[in-house]
Amino acid sequence: MALVMRSLAAGASVTRAAVAAEVGLTRATVSTLVDELLASGLLEERGAQRPGTVGRPGTALALSGNGPAGVGAEVGVDHLAACVVDLRGKVRCRTQVPAANRGRPAPEVLAELAGLTAQVTREARDRGLLPVGTTVAVPGLVGRDRGTVLRAPNLGWEDVAVAAALGQETVVENEANLGALAELWLGGHPRLADFVHVSAEIGIGAALVVEGRLFRGARGFAGELGHVPVRPDGPLCSCGAHGCLETYAGEEALLRAAGIGAGGGPALRAAAEAGDPAALRALEEAGAALGIALSGAVNLLDPQAVVVGGPLAALTPWLLPGVRRELADRVTDRQWRAEDVVTSRLGRDGVLLGAAYSAARAVLDNPADWVLKHGA
Amino acid sequence: MALVMRSLAAGASVTRAAVAAEVGLTRATVSTLVDELLASGLLEERGAQRPGTVGRPGTALALSGNGPAGVGAEVGVDHLAACVVDLRGKVRCRTQVPAANRGRPAPEVLAELAGLTAQVTREARDRGLLPVGTTVAVPGLVGRDRGTVLRAPNLGWEDVAVAAALGQETVVENEANLGALAELWLGGHPRLADFVHVSAEIGIGAALVVEGRLFRGARGFAGELGHVPVRPDGPLCSCGAHGCLETYAGEEALLRAAGIGAGGGPALRAAAEAGDPAALRALEEAGAALGIALSGAVNLLDPQAVVVGGPLAALTPWLLPGVRRELADRVTDRQWRAEDVVTSRLGRDGVLLGAAYSAARAVLDNPADWVLKHGA
Repeated sequence: MALVMRSLAAGASVTRAAVAAEVGLTRATVSTLVDELLASGLLEERGAQRPGTVGRPGTALALSGNGPAGVGAEVGVDHLAACVVDLRGKVRCRTQVPAANRGRPAPEVLAELAGLTAQVTREARDRGLLPVGTTVAVPGLVGRDRGTVLRAPNLGWEDVAVAAALGQETVVENEANLGALAELWLGGHPRLADFVHVSAEIGIGAALVVEGRLFRGARGFAGELGHVPVRPDGPLCSCGAHGCLETYAGEEALLRAAGIGAGGGPALRAAAEAGDPAALRALEEAGAALGIALSGAVNLLDPQAVVVGGPLAALTPWLLPGVRRELADRVTDRQWRAEDVVTSRLGRDGVLLGAAYSAARAVLDNPADWVLKHGA
Repeated sequence: MALVMRSLAAGASVTRAAVAAEVGLTRATVSTLVDELLASGLLEERGAQRPGTVGRPGTALALSGNGPAGVGAEVGVDHLAACVVDLRGKVRCRTQVPAANRGRPAPEVLAELAGLTAQVTREARDRGLLPVGTTVAVPGLVGRDRGTVLRAPNLGWEDVAVAAALGQETVVENEANLGALAELWLGGHPRLADFVHVSAEIGIGAALVVEGRLFRGARGFAGELGHVPVRPDGPLCSCGAHGCLETYAGEEALLRAAGIGAGGGPALRAAAEAGDPAALRALEEAGAALGIALSGAVNLLDPQAVVVGGPLAALTPWLLPGVRRELADRVTDRQWRAEDVVTSRLGRDGVLLGAAYSAARAVLDNPADWVLKHGA
């Protein structure tokens, strides 16, 4: 059942015959599985498919747009958001509020977030969806087993029990990881299974996808691109080291270098669009720093691509020239092409989308459980 | 059968009962498999094991020291070597000759190497071993499918068909990868499955082991630590970029900084042992550069450990202080301990050992094939 669901989720096959061919089961077995999945509401039929070259036309199948759904929630430094995504990866309800979360008591933040997830869950149920789980994205190091945030310096959090506050079934995950998973699942780049995903809000977040899976490292802390040294004697970083990428390309450093006091990323983008020399210089230098750090990552990891997502995606017109130049200069042992650096199409929404879809995917990964409970 | 062989190779269990408990099969099944493995010469019995707390004493089992064996060969910049290793990972025959291979015609190098592998293969057969395959270690980028060296700048090789010259069954592999695999299989660090392995001859070689497997990257070029930027405006590297790790810690850079004209690594070690200030300063600076590059790798990959092997292992008394200091300063988001940087016990022999054992492991990974051909 999981093979059938995943084959349809990947969009590769839409008829029973095509699914059978792809997953390597007989047509009869696939038909039986599809009937059970239809009866339990995980699949829908969409009428006859245009005839193939041989035999009767098949009936097109699709993942249900009205069955199980995932709830995603996001704690940003200056906002809170929640959404519900169906099995097809479509956002069905969404809410977002500005919130000054830096230094704000965690229980207060989580109470407000719980209100937002309750609201979108209610809306989703009103539309006939069945929310199956919640994933919360946080900008920090996460203890996934216990549903806690170990440390989120930009929020001022240490050892915050997020799952305990939002319901024990809640999964807590680092935002950079969820951005990368959204790219893997919903980014629309076919066959992209090995990549470095870079995003940023205040810090620089990155995550590694290897062979279609998130690469977590031995202790779960992989992907700290923000603390890769760019210039070992460079400016002091919040982590205590000198010259980390974050001191050149983190939002704070960027805004300072561009001379922008208020308005954050959107103000920087506006200044760059207006051709402001300080903004252009700051972005050019941040792009070069990003390219230097990424060239180390590419030399070590040999990914297919680097994907720039999250809030950084809005700045790629000005960041990418420096990124691409440094990569071209520093990754010389093998072919590395300018087009191997890609801008995410998910943009700022990637993290929230990844959170919600990771909750929905519990059903894709284990449809048999759902069928047992909801089948005919 | 592969489970049984691997359980015994890991040294964790020596009786049928212990193997059964470890691999999760019944005692009866394991006994049947062990009998077949004994009959085909892959296992040996070693007499009664000291009694356990309950039941009859079991008979100790061991991988055969007189069955299949692997042949390893190594093309160094200034030497050629070959050896044969048995299933237990013990070196049974070994030969090495000095050779000025830099710029020497590849056919000549490979003809000499073929002579060495033929010699050790003959010796191994005379001792009752059955060589099953050959792996050649080269300091360069490898096209494994076709058995070629794509590029080995320190030899001056481009597109050299190594397998065609040594026999089509020959496997060609990058030396850094084989050093890391030797560490994984034979390094004697139990439970070390996620690490960065750094070695060096002329260049800096590194390889990543993740979840007990070599991490090759999307195109097979992962592990290029030598071209991670340390200081982006640093000295020009042979790769065309500036400030790569190799320009600070590669052998050539090290010898130049230490003012050593001839004698290579051993002369440098002797100078350091004699307290020569230039040698000590050169090693201190190379250690710091290595630590800066490794701090990027550790922040990205979150390994359990960094293992320093190959010729570098002989220099760790002088290199490690700088490596450890930079790692301590730059990996701050989580606990990183000085003892997470380990010196390999295999030293200079790691690469050759890894080459030979990787050939022998074909039998460990697929013992059934062997049993079909050699069973009773």
